[in-house]
Amino acid sequence: MTAVFPEVSDLRDEALAAALQRRVDGKTVPQGALGRVAALARRLGVILGSTEPQLQAPQLVVFAADHGIAARGVSAYPSDVTWQMVGNFLAGGAAVSVLARQHGVTQTVVDCGVRHVFEPAPGLLLRKIAPGTQDSTQGPAMTRAQCEEALANGMALVRALPGNALLLGEMGIGNTSAASLLVARLGNLDVAEVTGAGTGLDAAGVARKTAVLREALAANAAAAAPLDALAALGGFEIATMVGAIVQAASERRVVVVDGFIASAAVLVACRLAPRVAQRCVYAHRSDERGHARLLALLQAEPLLDLGLRVGEGSGALLAWPILESACRILNEMASFESAGVSGKG
Amino acid sequence: MTAVFPEVSDLRDEALAAALQRRVDGKTVPQGALGRVAALARRLGVILGSTEPQLQAPQLVVFAADHGIAARGVSAYPSDVTWQMVGNFLAGGAAVSVLARQHGVTQTVVDCGVRHVFEPAPGLLLRKIAPGTQDSTQGPAMTRAQCEEALANGMALVRALPGNALLLGEMGIGNTSAASLLVARLGNLDVAEVTGAGTGLDAAGVARKTAVLREALAANAAAAAPLDALAALGGFEIATMVGAIVQAASERRVVVVDGFIASAAVLVACRLAPRVAQRCVYAHRSDERGHARLLALLQAEPLLDLGLRVGEGSGALLAWPILESACRILNEMASFESAGVSGKG
Repeated sequence: MTAVFPEVSDLRDEALAAALQRRVDGKTVPQGALGRVAALARRLGVILGSTEPQLQAPQLVVFAADHGIAARGVSAYPSDVTWQMVGNFLAGGAAVSVLARQHGVTQTVVDCGVRHVFEPAPGLLLRKIAPGTQDSTQGPAMTRAQCEEALANGMALVRALPGNALLLGEMGIGNTSAASLLVARLGNLDVAEVTGAGTGLDAAGVARKTAVLREALAANAAAAAPLDALAALGGFEIATMVGAIVQAASERRVVVVDGFIASAAVLVACRLAPRVAQRCVYAHRSDERGHARLLALLQAEPLLDLGLRVGEGSGALLAWPILESACRILNEMASFESAGVSGKG
Repeated sequence: MTAVFPEVSDLRDEALAAALQRRVDGKTVPQGALGRVAALARRLGVILGSTEPQLQAPQLVVFAADHGIAARGVSAYPSDVTWQMVGNFLAGGAAVSVLARQHGVTQTVVDCGVRHVFEPAPGLLLRKIAPGTQDSTQGPAMTRAQCEEALANGMALVRALPGNALLLGEMGIGNTSAASLLVARLGNLDVAEVTGAGTGLDAAGVARKTAVLREALAANAAAAAPLDALAALGGFEIATMVGAIVQAASERRVVVVDGFIASAAVLVACRLAPRVAQRCVYAHRSDERGHARLLALLQAEPLLDLGLRVGEGSGALLAWPILESACRILNEMASFESAGVSGKG
């Protein structure tokens, strides 16, 4: 089995970009005064192929799974928190659930490989590959076939979602470890540079985690190509998210990137299909060590910098109203001409 | 006539602060993971005096006026833009009007001293002191009596507004000059440090503006006390805003501070009543040179940094949903206990 990815078209369109620039420049503010909101408006226009872009039926998907490497003590919290938090999402009590409700964004939780058997429930998709990955310090976290299955799940689930915007969320005790491993390998970086406190390790804990991650890299030294690295070092939620990102990009959806783990999935997706990068809007710089380095690797300038390290998609949701503002500014604001306002003296 | 300000109580309350901290710490995210959103939630709780703060009927007020100093070429745009933009606000076509609509915030425009005669209109308060200030390079911008009248207008108009949150907006060609003068005088700073491009001057324009501002400071060398400086160097919209801020603070409303001009008004208000600072939430760091310096003076850490220099209250509105999120997180999120999620291992 070999992953077959949908085509991701090239969005470069000089005429559209110029038309968007003219539209922004005509708005009743001093030239350039809209700063990064103007840049965001142009980007959304390019992604959605319109000088009057409209965001429709935004979808937050929380990809959840467990990690074999968690048994090595790389997280401050026990693995049971993963399934318990899935329950919290479904009950609407998690940070991201509260924020999704605030902004009218639909929340879907995907069991990509949680170590727990869930009953079917509204808003929960059962796409479990296995109850957690293998410990990547002992060999690959998953088989190539499992990785391909997760990618296919991600693509299929996005095909079935309405709307034109995908907000990336995740839950999985141990998944900052998997993300650090992927970023170190694909970014050719020392893993210590991109390993942080995750859910709240102290300095000694981070040192132990870093040592464990070095073992995992050594145990999977040959896994250099993106899909090989994803299978060897990633997680089921990350692989499913990678499939979802590529599918969303192929459908010209806006991909709203959350924190460290979502950004790591975007890095993998961009290595598989570089034009994915054209569809991404980076929501925030998280407080997780390594995220700033990863954002630089992705040439990303996130909208927010609030010291968050919640994950779940919470940063994507906090930034969401700014995306809506950018579209409204394009669509609803008067021009100097229409409002009869004098230009620069 | 002497300004009589309402009392601004001391909000320090260790029991409430501790209760808010416990409430935040119990939420189902890793300890500290909510970053600055948690700090914001605590601050809103303290301002509104509750562990379950609710923002109600938020009011954006756009204070508008003209400036005599604009005749000296300190702005890239002609003074007529002030009254034309008032029309744009009332027609709903300005940036801030679009954003207020998006977030369900009520917009009120106040003619504090625009060089234009407006017909009465819904959403417009006529509180004109005079059609623009005098040129402060030739003496005081306004008389002490005019300044007192503007302050009283600001206090009275806030008393008549519903809700518990005031978002500060402004419009006035020349008002970055007035703000720079106030910050230089009250902050004891060289005016060049806090003088920027405003609506879009080039480097030569900024140099000319700085020279003009030095003239104004020299012409009003004795105006050192806050009210003297406000009268000599400020503007009618800034003085009215100062009154509004003090009144809002005395009523324990949340004051959402926009960019450079609103922050300068807050600086004046804090010199008049230091406890005003306890009620302020800083929305964003604008791209106007001097705002970063002014925020440091105010010990403020703004929520956003989007390179905006629109004014009008646009930054306050872009940040507004984050204030709502902070309250919702306090009020709607589950605790580890209520959700049955395991704590740190």
